[in-house]
Amino acid sequence: MIKAYLKKDPWKIIEDQFHADYSMVSESIFSIGNGYMGQRANFEETYSGESLQGSYISGVYYPDKTRVGWWKNGYPEYFAKVLNSLNWIGINISFGDEELDLNTAKIHEFSRVLNMKSGVLSRTMMIELASGKKLELTFERFCSYNTKELGVVNCVVKSIDYEGPLSLDAYLDFDVRNQDSNYDEMFWDLIDTDHSNSVYAKTKKTEFEVLASLNCEYKSSTPFDKTIHQSTAIYGERFTDVISPGQEKSILKKVIITTSFHHDNLELQNQTLRQSVRTKDFKSLKLSHSDIWEKKWDEIDIKIEGDVAAQQGVRYNIFQLHQTYSGEDARLNIGPKGFTGEKYGGSTYWDTEAYCLPFYLSTSDQKVAKNLLQYRHNHLDLAIENAEKLGFTQGAALYPMVTMNGEECHNEWEITFEEIHRNGAIAYAIYDYTQYTGDDSYLLDSGMEVLIGIARFWAQRVNYSKRLNQYVILGVTGPNEYENNVNNNWYTNYIAKWCLDYTHQVIQSALENNPMKANQILVKNNFDSERELNHWKEISEKMYFPYDEQESVFLQQDGFMDKEIYPASEIPTDVIPLHHHWSWDRILRSCFIKQADVLQGMYFFEDQFDVDTIRRHFHFYEPLTVHESSLSPCVHSILACKIGDNDKAYEMYLRTARLDLDDYNNDTRDGLHITSMAGTWLSIVKGFGGMRVKDGKLSFEPQIPEEWKSLSFKIKFRNHNICILFSQEQIILSKDSAEPLEIIVNNTMFTLRDQLEVAALLA
Amino acid sequence: MIKAYLKKDPWKIIEDQFHADYSMVSESIFSIGNGYMGQRANFEETYSGESLQGSYISGVYYPDKTRVGWWKNGYPEYFAKVLNSLNWIGINISFGDEELDLNTAKIHEFSRVLNMKSGVLSRTMMIELASGKKLELTFERFCSYNTKELGVVNCVVKSIDYEGPLSLDAYLDFDVRNQDSNYDEMFWDLIDTDHSNSVYAKTKKTEFEVLASLNCEYKSSTPFDKTIHQSTAIYGERFTDVISPGQEKSILKKVIITTSFHHDNLELQNQTLRQSVRTKDFKSLKLSHSDIWEKKWDEIDIKIEGDVAAQQGVRYNIFQLHQTYSGEDARLNIGPKGFTGEKYGGSTYWDTEAYCLPFYLSTSDQKVAKNLLQYRHNHLDLAIENAEKLGFTQGAALYPMVTMNGEECHNEWEITFEEIHRNGAIAYAIYDYTQYTGDDSYLLDSGMEVLIGIARFWAQRVNYSKRLNQYVILGVTGPNEYENNVNNNWYTNYIAKWCLDYTHQVIQSALENNPMKANQILVKNNFDSERELNHWKEISEKMYFPYDEQESVFLQQDGFMDKEIYPASEIPTDVIPLHHHWSWDRILRSCFIKQADVLQGMYFFEDQFDVDTIRRHFHFYEPLTVHESSLSPCVHSILACKIGDNDKAYEMYLRTARLDLDDYNNDTRDGLHITSMAGTWLSIVKGFGGMRVKDGKLSFEPQIPEEWKSLSFKIKFRNHNICILFSQEQIILSKDSAEPLEIIVNNTMFTLRDQLEVAALLA
Repeated sequence: MIKAYLKKDPWKIIEDQFHADYSMVSESIFSIGNGYMGQRANFEETYSGESLQGSYISGVYYPDKTRVGWWKNGYPEYFAKVLNSLNWIGINISFGDEELDLNTAKIHEFSRVLNMKSGVLSRTMMIELASGKKLELTFERFCSYNTKELGVVNCVVKSIDYEGPLSLDAYLDFDVRNQDSNYDEMFWDLIDTDHSNSVYAKTKKTEFEVLASLNCEYKSSTPFDKTIHQSTAIYGERFTDVISPGQEKSILKKVIITTSFHHDNLELQNQTLRQSVRTKDFKSLKLSHSDIWEKKWDEIDIKIEGDVAAQQGVRYNIFQLHQTYSGEDARLNIGPKGFTGEKYGGSTYWDTEAYCLPFYLSTSDQKVAKNLLQYRHNHLDLAIENAEKLGFTQGAALYPMVTMNGEECHNEWEITFEEIHRNGAIAYAIYDYTQYTGDDSYLLDSGMEVLIGIARFWAQRVNYSKRLNQYVILGVTGPNEYENNVNNNWYTNYIAKWCLDYTHQVIQSALENNPMKANQILVKNNFDSERELNHWKEISEKMYFPYDEQESVFLQQDGFMDKEIYPASEIPTDVIPLHHHWSWDRILRSCFIKQADVLQGMYFFEDQFDVDTIRRHFHFYEPLTVHESSLSPCVHSILACKIGDNDKAYEMYLRTARLDLDDYNNDTRDGLHITSMAGTWLSIVKGFGGMRVKDGKLSFEPQIPEEWKSLSFKIKFRNHNICILFSQEQIILSKDSAEPLEIIVNNTMFTLRDQLEVAALLA
Repeated sequence: MIKAYLKKDPWKIIEDQFHADYSMVSESIFSIGNGYMGQRANFEETYSGESLQGSYISGVYYPDKTRVGWWKNGYPEYFAKVLNSLNWIGINISFGDEELDLNTAKIHEFSRVLNMKSGVLSRTMMIELASGKKLELTFERFCSYNTKELGVVNCVVKSIDYEGPLSLDAYLDFDVRNQDSNYDEMFWDLIDTDHSNSVYAKTKKTEFEVLASLNCEYKSSTPFDKTIHQSTAIYGERFTDVISPGQEKSILKKVIITTSFHHDNLELQNQTLRQSVRTKDFKSLKLSHSDIWEKKWDEIDIKIEGDVAAQQGVRYNIFQLHQTYSGEDARLNIGPKGFTGEKYGGSTYWDTEAYCLPFYLSTSDQKVAKNLLQYRHNHLDLAIENAEKLGFTQGAALYPMVTMNGEECHNEWEITFEEIHRNGAIAYAIYDYTQYTGDDSYLLDSGMEVLIGIARFWAQRVNYSKRLNQYVILGVTGPNEYENNVNNNWYTNYIAKWCLDYTHQVIQSALENNPMKANQILVKNNFDSERELNHWKEISEKMYFPYDEQESVFLQQDGFMDKEIYPASEIPTDVIPLHHHWSWDRILRSCFIKQADVLQGMYFFEDQFDVDTIRRHFHFYEPLTVHESSLSPCVHSILACKIGDNDKAYEMYLRTARLDLDDYNNDTRDGLHITSMAGTWLSIVKGFGGMRVKDGKLSFEPQIPEEWKSLSFKIKFRNHNICILFSQEQIILSKDSAEPLEIIVNNTMFTLRDQLEVAALLA
């Protein structure tokens, strides 16, 4: 059920009256962040309604003790959780003895706006307290994009008809708990600070320190009192004043948050930054911040003419991705919920490699994508350890399903131990990067040994079936998590074979082109070239793929055709989503597919299949797919473009683009689906734009929805910034670099100098 | 690794020196009980070493809030736990300012004896306190078998060289927690009592009340003081005295425990019983108790001449079974650990039907077995509700995997939702009972509707595979829990088909022989005879069974032959047991079998298979079996007898008979394997004795181990008490009833009047 309570606008997310029922959803949707930290759209003032107070800082996590019903050997002891950090936005507001609380006040006007262009969240409202006092309030806040450690809140209070005392209490509060704490523990130890303007805490176990200091400016035309209150957890400044009808009072909070994860000396750094913003007013701080966002948009924007809903959706997704991850630090990664909630927290999943990497490859500096790869290389030793825990040997690496620091954090055997296809996506990302950028320095320096670890894992994980005289992979969970512990998941077998072949090829090519470097890596990894390469070849040649002759399709896994097969459209709507209504066994033995599985493979490896084959598989599997993973619609949208099914492509696009704005899966309250937002971008660029890199050349096969007047986006490709505009009649390409670039459009090669127009493109 | 620290003796379990390292194991092994309540062998006095204080009362459970890592739709909210109840044995003993504590005292002599013949646990010891005081102590205790609510402890203290003050504090303590509490909660609410000799508590949620009263007799030749101390949780009587070398002091605790589960008025009942034992001394109480045990042994004993280890093992198993369940109350059942520990607690599993029922059928009044069946009939509505939660309709019943009151308590999807073969065992038990007793009154009154519910479940749980043109059962866990979510587990498919056929046959036969009663039941259950019976027939005829042509064996499940198959004997011993060393995925994709699975089916339905077929399957599956379930060796022992493999039969027998005494699986510390103890009895009677019921006639095909001079046991069969003695040369049968009985020995029919000798029987 779609919640369509937000107004459609190309640049803004707008809630034009207060929806208390959707308060938790709005808290997620209006989240702000800057890659360094993020903040749910909690109210500054006291709010007694339903709320998840959420403030998160990148890199600062806590390994919570695992909770399971039935322990299984191999489960990790800990589950790393993104840490709910201090409340830095808080301003309690009282008028006489009445406290402002939107849960009890009468709300005459309310408007909440997230301006994506400027990166600022604002809220204006006209309210009436129980006693009848009428007031106007305006809040604006942002996580600064130029000084990442800075959070700013500005609040203006205006009286309409009230005359009397006013109190504004601006505070920092570190007495926070994670709502998803397994044993209801507090994850922070509070530290006494010498500074009268700060709160200071350290995480238990991981010992990350976080110091937050407050700089407050209160503006009033009448005399006022300022008192400071401080405990170990709280630092606050309370301003008491009087207000008359028509009068305005304002308070500006400038909060600097430094951490031992990011700063060598968090105290010094805090003081320095505090000093640097001390004299700056709200307007100038906001301007420096918005400037950066506006410049950024110039590089990353996607414009859709003729479809506001689609336009708002894609901008929102791009905006939230850039709020989450900026890619300067290879220790950081992209959590499925970014900084907008706790569930699945800020940990790293295969989403990063499969969905986010192509987005950052095309929209950010090459270093950003490289840092994402480097993150996995940094964790190679732990991936080898992880594989050892599961009985693998000799340098086989199994990357974790969920991780913060390289250690596995997930504890559900069918996922943790069996959803091993993730290893394939990590290898594929190396291929993707190298292929897109043409830069093979990562491959040589780091990628090759990641690939070796992964290939060794597959070589040990297969087993030879005498019956089939082929290699099989037993007991896995594919991307479709609505099947567990199956044999010969086609996607897994396919990507395993591909990993063996690709690693083989990388090693051979390195030995030919960079023998010294290559040998150095091989020796370091105790690589027995002849034995291992031959073994990989043998497995690759004899890999088993389940296939159904009658339907001429690869089967998702062994035995798939023994299921009762009927389309998802026949599922009664009152049991959707299935995982809320059907017991797990029923889901498992049904034919219904959570997310692209065989089709995920055809998406990754589309060059290996002709369009008819892809179409046949799409028509077989798509009707069985319920898209109960946010990662599903985008892949379907892209493949639908590929096979020329425009309606399906558009339907799937809207589902991915507005997943959170329309709360499709009824879970936006827990946080946004950050990683799947990259899928929206993919749907546009790879789907409607039909962009691929073929033998090092950019290629487009556009197919834009009829509803759209035009679609345009910018991408970075090998030192070129390229702007592509599709209308229903033509495609216009332009770039800012001098060097000419060969570009393929609908299978015809063109040379792009400054600008190129190709007419009558669209079928 | 076997812990052989106990002495071998035909009637006693003896620990002749204190093994602090095995203290938890001993606490389990020396447990006492009377079917109404049970008590681990904790020490009466303070013990600062490792201990699980455990006292349990039948029927009194607590539904603890479920703990899971990842919630799945359909999981139960609660897990019913056997409740750790008051400590009623406690006597703190001090000499001057020194408290007796075996963890710190020097132990010169120690002997702990569980006399199985009399049902009394005793302990004598000579100890030296840190100060050098030397003392002798004797403890005896039992849970009375004639007054089930009565627990008795007698303690005699004798000084060897100590002269000085002595204090004995006999108390009841209700401040107890379950060690396995999910959220570390206290499960009891304490109630203030008016009576100065009692403690009184009520379980949270379930509101079972338990009242325990104490009657203490202190004997001393010198003057002493008595003081009473009482709080809400504790009632105690402290006797302070002086003791001289050579002097003896004794204290007798008589504790009456009544509950609202068992008694309409627990206070009145408590007072009445308290009154009835008030004047009785220890000797007379013990005598009335032991008398009953001795009489019982006369009916249930198994004698093995020439093998003390085997003799001790089987008696121990019989003893513990009768300590756990006496069968008077159809609301009660047999927990896997009885009253000896918390893990898996006192809940009901399919163990009852598959293993325990035949034991009680042959060794107890027919009513006992009938009560076990009635237990499931009483839960039929809840089994239907349980199936509805999983999406089944129209009266399909799925009995829970684990239950206390009929509701499912288990929360591991691959077990809870998928180990559905349990339904088959519940149907099989009805067949077993009817077949053994010749009494079809349960079948008609109750069994038929249980069978209908179960058959309806199977009819909905199968699905038709177009590919095979057969019915398949997807997504199950068989008895071998080292495979999860497999397709077409042979055992499950087989018992499902059998359930459909048997229910069909029962209904038809009832319609022929008792049409009125039959129609009444069918109408009550909205049974559509034509449609349902035809549907069942169609499924039964087209049920699919995985089979391997090359090996000529039924396959445990689809795809079994794709595994890497090698014998369990090649597993390095340092990774045994596998579930402690291998990660779960590795276990799952290995060929290793936790417990009889295909062989469990051949054991249940051996008439359907010739001996060669059974032998072929035994030789295929037994080498792959690791017996990491306590329910495994007995089935293998019985089948080994069947196929004439005496050595294997004996090896498996010892493993089942001495599982706890020798702590084979290294988990006896958590409690005894009560339900699998019935398997020991089965190994003797159905294995070595080769006893079966064939067309209503008892049949024997004995095969006793070479080591044994003779084997004899008694069984109840249709109003006859029959004694069977096998030696290596002959079999002697006798009975106490007048009526002659036809008995088959080695396929030859004999008529047993008083006594019958058949010579040269054993191959």
